Amino acid sequence: MPKHKFLLEEKDIPRKWYNLAADLPSPMQPPLAPDGSPLNPAMLERIFPGNIIEQEISTQRWIDIPEEILEILTLWRPAPLRRALALEKYLKTPARIYYKDESTSPAGSHKPNTAVAQAWYNKKFGIKRLTTETGAGQWGSALAFACNLIGLQCRVYMVRISFDQKPMRKTMMQTWGAECIASPSTHTHAGREVLKAMPHTPGSLGIAISEAVEDALSDKSNKSRYSLGSVLNHVLLHQTIIGLEAKKQLKLAKEKKPDVVIGCVGGGSNFAGVAFPFVCDKIHGEKIQIIPVEPTACPTLTKGPFAYDFGDIAGLTPLLPMYTLGHKFVPEPIHAGGLRYHGMAPLVSQAAVEGLISPRAYDQVKCYESAVIWAKTEGTIPAPETSHAIACAIDEAKKAKAEGKQKVILFCYSGHGLMDLAGYDKFLTGKLSAYHLPGHKIQDSLCALKKFPAAKKIKTGRW
Amino acid sequence: MPKHKFLLEEKDIPRKWYNLAADLPSPMQPPLAPDGSPLNPAMLERIFPGNIIEQEISTQRWIDIPEEILEILTLWRPAPLRRALALEKYLKTPARIYYKDESTSPAGSHKPNTAVAQAWYNKKFGIKRLTTETGAGQWGSALAFACNLIGLQCRVYMVRISFDQKPMRKTMMQTWGAECIASPSTHTHAGREVLKAMPHTPGSLGIAISEAVEDALSDKSNKSRYSLGSVLNHVLLHQTIIGLEAKKQLKLAKEKKPDVVIGCVGGGSNFAGVAFPFVCDKIHGEKIQIIPVEPTACPTLTKGPFAYDFGDIAGLTPLLPMYTLGHKFVPEPIHAGGLRYHGMAPLVSQAAVEGLISPRAYDQVKCYESAVIWAKTEGTIPAPETSHAIACAIDEAKKAKAEGKQKVILFCYSGHGLMDLAGYDKFLTGKLSAYHLPGHKIQDSLCALKKFPAAKKIKTGRW
Repeated sequence: MPKHKFLLEEKDIPRKWYNLAADLPSPMQPPLAPDGSPLNPAMLERIFPGNIIEQEISTQRWIDIPEEILEILTLWRPAPLRRALALEKYLKTPARIYYKDESTSPAGSHKPNTAVAQAWYNKKFGIKRLTTETGAGQWGSALAFACNLIGLQCRVYMVRISFDQKPMRKTMMQTWGAECIASPSTHTHAGREVLKAMPHTPGSLGIAISEAVEDALSDKSNKSRYSLGSVLNHVLLHQTIIGLEAKKQLKLAKEKKPDVVIGCVGGGSNFAGVAFPFVCDKIHGEKIQIIPVEPTACPTLTKGPFAYDFGDIAGLTPLLPMYTLGHKFVPEPIHAGGLRYHGMAPLVSQAAVEGLISPRAYDQVKCYESAVIWAKTEGTIPAPETSHAIACAIDEAKKAKAEGKQKVILFCYSGHGLMDLAGYDKFLTGKLSAYHLPGHKIQDSLCALKKFPAAKKIKTGRW
Repeated sequence: MPKHKFLLEEKDIPRKWYNLAADLPSPMQPPLAPDGSPLNPAMLERIFPGNIIEQEISTQRWIDIPEEILEILTLWRPAPLRRALALEKYLKTPARIYYKDESTSPAGSHKPNTAVAQAWYNKKFGIKRLTTETGAGQWGSALAFACNLIGLQCRVYMVRISFDQKPMRKTMMQTWGAECIASPSTHTHAGREVLKAMPHTPGSLGIAISEAVEDALSDKSNKSRYSLGSVLNHVLLHQTIIGLEAKKQLKLAKEKKPDVVIGCVGGGSNFAGVAFPFVCDKIHGEKIQIIPVEPTACPTLTKGPFAYDFGDIAGLTPLLPMYTLGHKFVPEPIHAGGLRYHGMAPLVSQAAVEGLISPRAYDQVKCYESAVIWAKTEGTIPAPETSHAIACAIDEAKKAKAEGKQKVILFCYSGHGLMDLAGYDKFLTGKLSAYHLPGHKIQDSLCALKKFPAAKKIKTGRW
């Protein structure tokens, strides 16, 4: 019988990260200071340690993974590449569907890949404490896990709607010794301002980022820094270990290359992780369709313009060149909390501008339907975020069937849904609705963005 | 650096189960009918299909695993053997601690090993629907998962206390298409009787078994059967794949043999799974200490007599020769719901009588302390049941340190605790207390057992 799993030995773990910035056809636009002027690096140094900033701006193609980080990663890595034989059979598709199983990390998602690296670099730089935000809780759990292993204090601002939907995520973070606070909170000026204006807000990643950044900046001892779970270049860099392992494993499966590579996108990190090593191949001539999948409730790549915008609601971060719905945009409380982000990683945005990737948006009902098909065939219960990638993989497998083509489909199974079963309960009892962000809300949001003086549209994209 | 993981290829999965009944020094006592007379096999045939009964009474040493079962097991098997390097370092122990990671199954525990086999044999026998009980929810989830893949209907009676503590387990079962009902329920005569006598009972496995058996027996079409997740010989048989894989993997790790083998025990299945292949070696002369660990709240092996008793509260099952606290005993609502069982697998009981295994009891506070040490070193969050094995492994590693011996310790990491975080929350906020079943309660319970006419003490053991 065909194999289900393609495993690498610990010694075969990739020893370098891949940096797409080295290979993009056009150079990346630089980040700007909040007033639109060139960025003063000193400002970044209060948010991130110097060794991380170095990685953030690097255009070196391969970056060595320090041995001590590799040692921690091998707690669960190399992660398995699995073939979805039961799903293929159910769909009667000639496609071969592979998925990189990132749900096997202790925190249950791909997030520890960068959490461990970031904690390690911060520790090395003499930092004692990290602050961060989390949406669905995957990132907060991952950073709590990493800080505990590396020996740093950790405070997590968790988006209120997810904090309420998933109280066990808090317990998970506390088990690893971290503090977890619902955002917006009264701990920060930014949080208090939002609460004044919108006392019943479900919160958003943009708000929680403001709180975490403000918290780190206000540490008088200068020993706190902020850590981000997605969006930035160094985060995406750390995640490329996913695609690099998958490449080795596809060889074990005797596949020359994937025809389709799929990842869900919120800030862009798991998508970039699985896809960038293949974007590199595409730049060098391979024919590969590469699809980031976002929710229709937060259609950044499919409906937003490519513009300079803040990463957070309060405007504490530098201006980033990215697809965005405007930093004041608060997405509906869909269950895929990790995809509720107004912006998009600059590297993913640039790859979209270059036409290297083909974004798509799915609604949450379609995604839960796909997730249940998955659970009933492959057996595992995916995170709501991951279900976006699964829905797309199913569509592509059906297309391969219609076309009679033996396509190789690879997607990132970014995390399990064991902490997200409340959403499944709603779906199974018919209480969940599809949500497409209406046109007038997109217009409102983009008008607000246009009026914001520092924002400017770049080269291409809608406005 | 030393390796964390010892992986087998799918082709190296064991193809036979090991049956300890073939090797026990004394023959097993037979099960008896509820009135104490020799058992009429026809009664069993209304509860279990013939092919399962055949396995239940088999004394054949090796039993072939059907190819179709192997194909489903390879969705997640072979399961990894991991070495707890970080815990060893934390304990500064010369011991090498290995754990067989059964948490990697879709349902999150070792339970699917037998759920898949049982569903397959029932389907082959023409059965359409299975009923069962579940404590913590691990077994119910596993059977829901297996029935969905094999194509059977499934109804699960879940012990009320766990149903309330872990509502997400219900959603998990429903995602796989099963029904999940809190027990005691009004669906059965047995449930209604218990509710009448104890309206606020937390429920117990003994009660839920009565309900599930009655439900299967009352199907007029004769197409329903009952499925048990532990205790019986065939269940333990299916779990021996755990220890058989572990043996191959210890060879990969270049270990000659384990010095200590540990598993938590409720009904006995994960313990038997990891331990029986090594009990076989012990019978043939190897020096191995084999430790089943039970909760002090339900000290069946350490405080109960070896006697004939019912498997359920209502007395619907045959009388089994086992260590027992009496079938009317309802354990305190500790968080390790899977260990709240008044009896013990006859095969495990017999191994204890023969002196082949050395039972031990731990309280839940000690177990949660060990679980948090584990989470902070090895990174993963164990099930409360599993934490009993971890507590013992830590004790044994400390003992090896005190003795200056390089012992090899193997334990079964029977499941993850991601659905059990409510217990961690209580522990972390100081709301959990150690619970030792007081002597007078044990005396009461055993008096009740003695008065029960069909029960009789066997050979040895307390009374």
